[in-house]
Amino acid sequence: MNSNEALKAVLSSIRDGNLDVEQAMEQLRDLPFQDLGHTKIDHHRALRNGFPEVIYGAGKSPEQIADIFKHMCGRSNVLATRVSKDAAEYILGRFPDVEYNPTANTLTCKSQEVKYGSGQVGIITAGTSDLSVAEEALVTCDMLGSRAAIISDIGVAGIHRLFHRIEEIRKFTVLIVVAGMEGALSSVIGGLVEQPIIAVPTSVGYGANFSGLSALLGMLTSCASGVTVVNIDNGFGAACAACKINRLLDKHSKNA
Amino acid sequence: MNSNEALKAVLSSIRDGNLDVEQAMEQLRDLPFQDLGHTKIDHHRALRNGFPEVIYGAGKSPEQIADIFKHMCGRSNVLATRVSKDAAEYILGRFPDVEYNPTANTLTCKSQEVKYGSGQVGIITAGTSDLSVAEEALVTCDMLGSRAAIISDIGVAGIHRLFHRIEEIRKFTVLIVVAGMEGALSSVIGGLVEQPIIAVPTSVGYGANFSGLSALLGMLTSCASGVTVVNIDNGFGAACAACKINRLLDKHSKNA
Amino acid sequence: MNSNEALKAVLSSIRDGNLDVEQAMEQLRDLPFQDLGHTKIDHHRALRNGFPEVIYGAGKSPEQIADIFKHMCGRSNVLATRVSKDAAEYILGRFPDVEYNPTANTLTCKSQEVKYGSGQVGIITAGTSDLSVAEEALVTCDMLGSRAAIISDIGVAGIHRLFHRIEEIRKFTVLIVVAGMEGALSSVIGGLVEQPIIAVPTSVGYGANFSGLSALLGMLTSCASGVTVVNIDNGFGAACAACKINRLLDKHSKNA
Amino acid sequence: MNSNEALKAVLSSIRDGNLDVEQAMEQLRDLPFQDLGHTKIDHHRALRNGFPEVIYGAGKSPEQIADIFKHMCGRSNVLATRVSKDAAEYILGRFPDVEYNPTANTLTCKSQEVKYGSGQVGIITAGTSDLSVAEEALVTCDMLGSRAAIISDIGVAGIHRLFHRIEEIRKFTVLIVVAGMEGALSSVIGGLVEQPIIAVPTSVGYGANFSGLSALLGMLTSCASGVTVVNIDNGFGAACAACKINRLLDKHSKNA
Amino acid sequence: MNSNEALKAVLSSIRDGNLDVEQAMEQLRDLPFQDLGHTKIDHHRALRNGFPEVIYGAGKSPEQIADIFKHMCGRSNVLATRVSKDAAEYILGRFPDVEYNPTANTLTCKSQEVKYGSGQVGIITAGTSDLSVAEEALVTCDMLGSRAAIISDIGVAGIHRLFHRIEEIRKFTVLIVVAGMEGALSSVIGGLVEQPIIAVPTSVGYGANFSGLSALLGMLTSCASGVTVVNIDNGFGAACAACKINRLLDKHSKNA
Amino acid sequence: MNSNEALKAVLSSIRDGNLDVEQAMEQLRDLPFQDLGHTKIDHHRALRNGFPEVIYGAGKSPEQIADIFKHMCGRSNVLATRVSKDAAEYILGRFPDVEYNPTANTLTCKSQEVKYGSGQVGIITAGTSDLSVAEEALVTCDMLGSRAAIISDIGVAGIHRLFHRIEEIRKFTVLIVVAGMEGALSSVIGGLVEQPIIAVPTSVGYGANFSGLSALLGMLTSCASGVTVVNIDNGFGAACAACKINRLLDKHSKNA
Amino acid sequence: MNSNEALKAVLSSIRDGNLDVEQAMEQLRDLPFQDLGHTKIDHHRALRNGFPEVIYGAGKSPEQIADIFKHMCGRSNVLATRVSKDAAEYILGRFPDVEYNPTANTLTCKSQEVKYGSGQVGIITAGTSDLSVAEEALVTCDMLGSRAAIISDIGVAGIHRLFHRIEEIRKFTVLIVVAGMEGALSSVIGGLVEQPIIAVPTSVGYGANFSGLSALLGMLTSCASGVTVVNIDNGFGAACAACKINRLLDKHSKNA
Amino acid sequence: MNSNEALKAVLSSIRDGNLDVEQAMEQLRDLPFQDLGHTKIDHHRALRNGFPEVIYGAGKSPEQIADIFKHMCGRSNVLATRVSKDAAEYILGRFPDVEYNPTANTLTCKSQEVKYGSGQVGIITAGTSDLSVAEEALVTCDMLGSRAAIISDIGVAGIHRLFHRIEEIRKFTVLIVVAGMEGALSSVIGGLVEQPIIAVPTSVGYGANFSGLSALLGMLTSCASGVTVVNIDNGFGAACAACKINRLLDKHSKNA
Repeated sequence: MNSNEALKAVLSSIRDGNLDVEQAMEQLRDLPFQDLGHTKIDHHRALRNGFPEVIYGAGKSPEQIADIFKHMCGRSNVLATRVSKDAAEYILGRFPDVEYNPTANTLTCKSQEVKYGSGQVGIITAGTSDLSVAEEALVTCDMLGSRAAIISDIGVAGIHRLFHRIEEIRKFTVLIVVAGMEGALSSVIGGLVEQPIIAVPTSVGYGANFSGLSALLGMLTSCASGVTVVNIDNGFGAACAACKINRLLDKHSKNA
Repeated sequence: MNSNEALKAVLSSIRDGNLDVEQAMEQLRDLPFQDLGHTKIDHHRALRNGFPEVIYGAGKSPEQIADIFKHMCGRSNVLATRVSKDAAEYILGRFPDVEYNPTANTLTCKSQEVKYGSGQVGIITAGTSDLSVAEEALVTCDMLGSRAAIISDIGVAGIHRLFHRIEEIRKFTVLIVVAGMEGALSSVIGGLVEQPIIAVPTSVGYGANFSGLSALLGMLTSCASGVTVVNIDNGFGAACAACKINRLLDKHSKNA
Repeated sequence: MNSNEALKAVLSSIRDGNLDVEQAMEQLRDLPFQDLGHTKIDHHRALRNGFPEVIYGAGKSPEQIADIFKHMCGRSNVLATRVSKDAAEYILGRFPDVEYNPTANTLTCKSQEVKYGSGQVGIITAGTSDLSVAEEALVTCDMLGSRAAIISDIGVAGIHRLFHRIEEIRKFTVLIVVAGMEGALSSVIGGLVEQPIIAVPTSVGYGANFSGLSALLGMLTSCASGVTVVNIDNGFGAACAACKINRLLDKHSKNA
Repeated sequence: MNSNEALKAVLSSIRDGNLDVEQAMEQLRDLPFQDLGHTKIDHHRALRNGFPEVIYGAGKSPEQIADIFKHMCGRSNVLATRVSKDAAEYILGRFPDVEYNPTANTLTCKSQEVKYGSGQVGIITAGTSDLSVAEEALVTCDMLGSRAAIISDIGVAGIHRLFHRIEEIRKFTVLIVVAGMEGALSSVIGGLVEQPIIAVPTSVGYGANFSGLSALLGMLTSCASGVTVVNIDNGFGAACAACKINRLLDKHSKNA
Repeated sequence: MNSNEALKAVLSSIRDGNLDVEQAMEQLRDLPFQDLGHTKIDHHRALRNGFPEVIYGAGKSPEQIADIFKHMCGRSNVLATRVSKDAAEYILGRFPDVEYNPTANTLTCKSQEVKYGSGQVGIITAGTSDLSVAEEALVTCDMLGSRAAIISDIGVAGIHRLFHRIEEIRKFTVLIVVAGMEGALSSVIGGLVEQPIIAVPTSVGYGANFSGLSALLGMLTSCASGVTVVNIDNGFGAACAACKINRLLDKHSKNA
Repeated sequence: MNSNEALKAVLSSIRDGNLDVEQAMEQLRDLPFQDLGHTKIDHHRALRNGFPEVIYGAGKSPEQIADIFKHMCGRSNVLATRVSKDAAEYILGRFPDVEYNPTANTLTCKSQEVKYGSGQVGIITAGTSDLSVAEEALVTCDMLGSRAAIISDIGVAGIHRLFHRIEEIRKFTVLIVVAGMEGALSSVIGGLVEQPIIAVPTSVGYGANFSGLSALLGMLTSCASGVTVVNIDNGFGAACAACKINRLLDKHSKNA
Repeated sequence: MNSNEALKAVLSSIRDGNLDVEQAMEQLRDLPFQDLGHTKIDHHRALRNGFPEVIYGAGKSPEQIADIFKHMCGRSNVLATRVSKDAAEYILGRFPDVEYNPTANTLTCKSQEVKYGSGQVGIITAGTSDLSVAEEALVTCDMLGSRAAIISDIGVAGIHRLFHRIEEIRKFTVLIVVAGMEGALSSVIGGLVEQPIIAVPTSVGYGANFSGLSALLGMLTSCASGVTVVNIDNGFGAACAACKINRLLDKHSKNA
Repeated sequence: MNSNEALKAVLSSIRDGNLDVEQAMEQLRDLPFQDLGHTKIDHHRALRNGFPEVIYGAGKSPEQIADIFKHMCGRSNVLATRVSKDAAEYILGRFPDVEYNPTANTLTCKSQEVKYGSGQVGIITAGTSDLSVAEEALVTCDMLGSRAAIISDIGVAGIHRLFHRIEEIRKFTVLIVVAGMEGALSSVIGGLVEQPIIAVPTSVGYGANFSGLSALLGMLTSCASGVTVVNIDNGFGAACAACKINRLLDKHSKNA
């Protein structure tokens, strides 16, 4: 039941005399999230925009993260990103079912089986140094129900490495292109394939890279039409966008 | 026949003795584009990444644009963006079948019937001042075969205007959100719907807007997961990305 | 006695023969501050602009902070902000009456009872990670005589969490909105309430956040009219501004 | 009747059988704004956050502005800001009751008498060149029901000019400080008075001013606590914030 | 005779009694440039760093440019860059031997035959809009004695256009790569060829291009090793660098 | 009589019964400036910091500038900077004694003879295009009583031109170095002379010059110790600083 | 055999019946690089653009670097740049033939004798603090077959130190100029010599240096024509560019 | 004997037959600096621009700094700035006559008595946190022969503290104003005094301070004429500039 249907249901209940106005106001307060004091957990987000609550680990203490895991792990699958090594160890010591990916800096807890859709996400990196961001995207895709694979180290300075893999690349439904420095890889691939491409600039580089700015501006001004961009190093966001497209595919096929 | 199949065909012809090596080298030179001196027209781009050649009008003289129209209009549909009023008048006086959209600053020439796919693009603007960018997206969607509609002036400062239209918004397959100033509209919509969202920051605003920088950074750092971003004022690019998703839908349904 | 009255008094004393010119020059030197060598303590600042001297702890050694506490604690209430854990421990070991808030990074010494005014400050945060800034605002409001409360984690990506609390939010006299990333929360709230809103951008985020720049620019270019902004992470400054408004309320009621 | 009461009323009507669910859905669509195609006019904004709809003239054609005036002038007072000389002449020729202020670049239409509150806004400028922004603030205050006055050209390089007027300045309830270049005026005044201060950086200056950036950063990092800042050249926004405070004063006095 | 030999000659003359100290001081004042009041013309620059005096037309009045042409045209070849249409017409009306290139915005006066070296410069552009910068490079190469040719419109979004020309490109001794937007062309070519590459970012683009910043940063952070970069739109400077390399070739061959 | 003596005098008058407190307050209001409504003219600034009131013409209408000239011309010498050609013509038509310098964009009115001090200012420019800024400095020096001269077009790319003039340069008491592009001239001269050097970055250049930013940063980070910097294109400010040093020389000699 | 000849060979084999299409597709996959999972090693890069594979150590773990050394050391010479002290120790403990340069932060493994060309690279630094970047360039030149030497600490603030060495500097074929702060050294040298100059801005400095931005902008806007620039601190890239020029010399001499 | 006289002497010696050309070339090589390999020590800099060689400690190892001290300490006074605590301890353990100032982060070695000039430098700070920069200026002034004193913590937010000291401030010959945040102090003082003012922006602050950018821009755009600026946190450079002015005073008095 999505939130619109929920609203309709409340309205109908009032009409039918099953709910008075005060109770209706109350029910609107009982919208599906839960208050931990420091954090509102949003159990029904899956219904509303298709994803489980995700924990952004960067600004949180190990204790805060543990607290969220405690309340969520039984109810749904959980993904925590940008978890420091210290926080990861703290959690792993308390939650035996949680898995840590040290390249992606993610914690995952799969209490329910993931149902995979039919689309597949290709995650392409320009260099070895972009792997951490690519892995974050990979883990996220998996948790959101899209099968995904990484094709790494095929940057444009050795473009034959790219052509070597181009047919393989064309088989994915959606592509995530992860590149630092000048971010040119998304332009080149954008000119060679038909799929939707989501570009992730990375902060790999130094000097005029200015913490990812060069790749960000490069991807935004790409001469290849139809490349879209997410925040610097945001493998998670790119995966969310890719999975939204994949979900749309299955929903659309079903309706067709 | 896409470029990969073309390559295979050339290789096969050599094997079969229908082509010698020199001829093969020659054929690779005969790849499907045409040289106007100042511009290489790429008639087969539609095959390769799904779109007709598009003229970026901003840096070109009226004469150069006319030259390109002359060579392309018969062969395929043509879209020119960022065409100045002066250039538009010059073209319209020479090509009676070309249409000008003064809000979108586009010229279009439809020599062939557009085949529309099943997906639909919703283009949402925060304010009246964003309409020019939204119209560019609308015209582009139409030329690329996606039905589209604009829902305008529902920015977050009067958020009830957004809620008024939310069910309508949920019916599109893909959303383009066009907003200047702080670009918050994409975050709010991103939290309310399940579809893929492509955000277009606009240069509408002044002062700390810094020619669209505030909206650009705001959209890139959006707290709503899975929003992707294109360049400032790039209605065309957002439409390309949206139409790639829509094409994928139809291709996938057919295969399913 | 404010500084203008003090000036008048000095002038009158000269006229009355109670003070000669040299003495008057001397008295102007005896303006109400005290010199510690490294710092001028300004005991009368409360009279002049309504606040006690506040210690900005960031650039000071534990010894310097202790020195200021030693001279001020008896005479007035003291608030130190941005105090490192190390400095805090140093002070706490020497001044038993000083309290440390580790989330807000503040030290407080209440030697006199705080007189609370009638206004109330609502401090709203977009996410859990903004809590440190919100707590700094809370402690500051308390020291300046405004009752305040924090409503946390109601960012715009899950906007129903905001609507759930909107009536509660409307009951405060002044609002402080604390948000990182794109800072959209102040725009949305600004469109829903009538109160003065002071927005605090935070440096929470990464990449295109550029240490708070995205939230800062977003809040400055907010489409909601009448939102004012303070420096990035400046919970203290926002609280000062909010308390100035609350003091004005009580002063104005008394005069009315 | 504010929007919350409106919601309650709709709910009650359903309960009482005066409204069925479909009608309720309809009524929510009849929320108080009106669609001109290019612009949604929001007649009830006054109820919701205390201000009439304001037209931001910068991105609109004279015809669009005229269209909005046509639909709004009878129903409420109207304020258009950032209106070019050309657009102003176009409107003045069609609406005899509209007034144009060429310094402030505003158009105003007072179809209803403005009810002034008891608070007063002091608008202080550093130099003659800041007058346009100050006038925009003045006109806005007037339209929103706050009496206001400008004190101009008292920048910090000749600080005796400021001290000459300081007692006068202390009599306002709220201060708006308008300054370009280094924006130091708000810091100095912030240390001398007790009132709320809203600082407006202006783009007056050249070179390292970078279109107002120097004043903006200066005001944001002001050493005077409690100064809040609006966008560069945003006299309108500063006036909105000041008037929100003044309205709060009258509401609070009434309740006290 | 280069400047070092000149110095030696002066020293020798003193030693030989042919010059007294005062005269020597005088001769050092007679170093080979000529003072027009507003400009020092440097007739011997060719000797010192291998190039004729070049007029940077952007900051000069037509009269000033004409004045310089008057003093220089007889003595050496002259190149003026960034000459506005107005200034060009003024000069052309006065100096019949001067030639104007309206795409490159250059004026040239060849009073002496140019001696071409053996190296050749390939000037490659990503798009039609980069032609003005490429033409400036072409004219400059010609004046400095390097044969050069432009290969245009082979940007990376249609990378087969680049491969089509790659053998031709490999035949030049030095390459100048001119590209706007993300500037990716220099990275791709840098990975495919062995020659020195000088990259020229152009201000072609909009939005996140920020007047050439995206291409500049992209080229500076290029993943292809050994690409060097000149200022945005600086076709002239790139040509100077390329010609220095070509001159070195001939000098080195002669010595070998 | 400087402001401190004035204060003492007021205090003494009260003591002596020649002034009552109210009158004293009044006298402090009669501080030496005059109110034109839009501008406070400050006739006694000469006393306070040694300079006449200067009109910054950039943000003012011809009428406003004329108004100021009308009130000031009789009483003191007047200097207006950054006066547009249009404004200059308007003023020249009304004030026959005013002189216009079209390179410096200044208007000057010398109603009193300028008394020149003993120091001399050398104004050195890197290129012809920097002359406008240098002339503004020259005119300002003259009005402030320092003899000055311009040595132009001796930028570092032809460093022998600089050495040619170095002895001449060493004869000035203070140097102003005006340079655009990379601003290297101030570093080189700073290593060769002993005098105080004031560097003026100019906006001459393009691309990575970013409106003078490259020269500004270059001069601020100069490897030559003791070079100080003023705002981009601020010939006026540099002259003020230079003249302050020259005045100090004469004052110090007199006292010695 | 370069990649073009390889392509021709494959095509010929098909024609001759020695290879069927599937095999040809396979051979194209056997292009000369090797997959380590995390990194594609490109053994034939030397053929294609003249350099061995270089390891960019900054983003890689000691284990990853060791893995690459293990696969490459026998086959070709290896250069690793930006290797941390920790990583260096890890490698040195495992590969006795590897050498570490702690100033340059490089690891080198020379399994084959380097063949030096005839050109020579002069590496000039402005200050002692630029030595690390200069050493990186030196080591790189050596590995790429160019003899090179460093001339250090001859910045423009003591320009006689530069003139002292100018004849020596003029003897190199190519110059690399390494400078931080304002980066003026490349402009001055650019005006004194005829050779190609590659400028390397360094991040040496503080404040307005903004991590090398001042030197970068200064070098890009250099008034000396024909200076090219690489990324901040990129001694490696400058050496690559210099060696490309030197290789061209030898190739050209051979052909001449 | 300055460098010009030295040149003349060499020329004369050749004329007189006391020196042949080769010897003259040699002597020019014997210019007064000494080569340590990593650093050229410049013993005669005092003659040339009035200062001893100063060691910029930031980029140097303790061993390198010690090496320089070893070669210089006997010959002249030495000042090392930006010396880390570790480096300081290393030096102090080896050179008993060296003094360390931990606030200023300076090492000094006075082997010769400093001769103080007649001018005096007032160093004024806005806040306690600016003391480190002020102390660097103080130590530098002392080493360069100018008596100096610090007046601290008189920022503009409590402007009476400034007025309390204004007469004292007016007694210095030159002022250095050190301020972070918005840097307003230099504008206010600039309007109150006649002396030359050198402003030093500091990186004290956070958020929109952007590491000193707000103070830097504020000081550069100061509305007070004649304020000059040095690099962020550059107390050393400000002191050099101030001392150059003071030296000029004594030289000028002597000549007068």
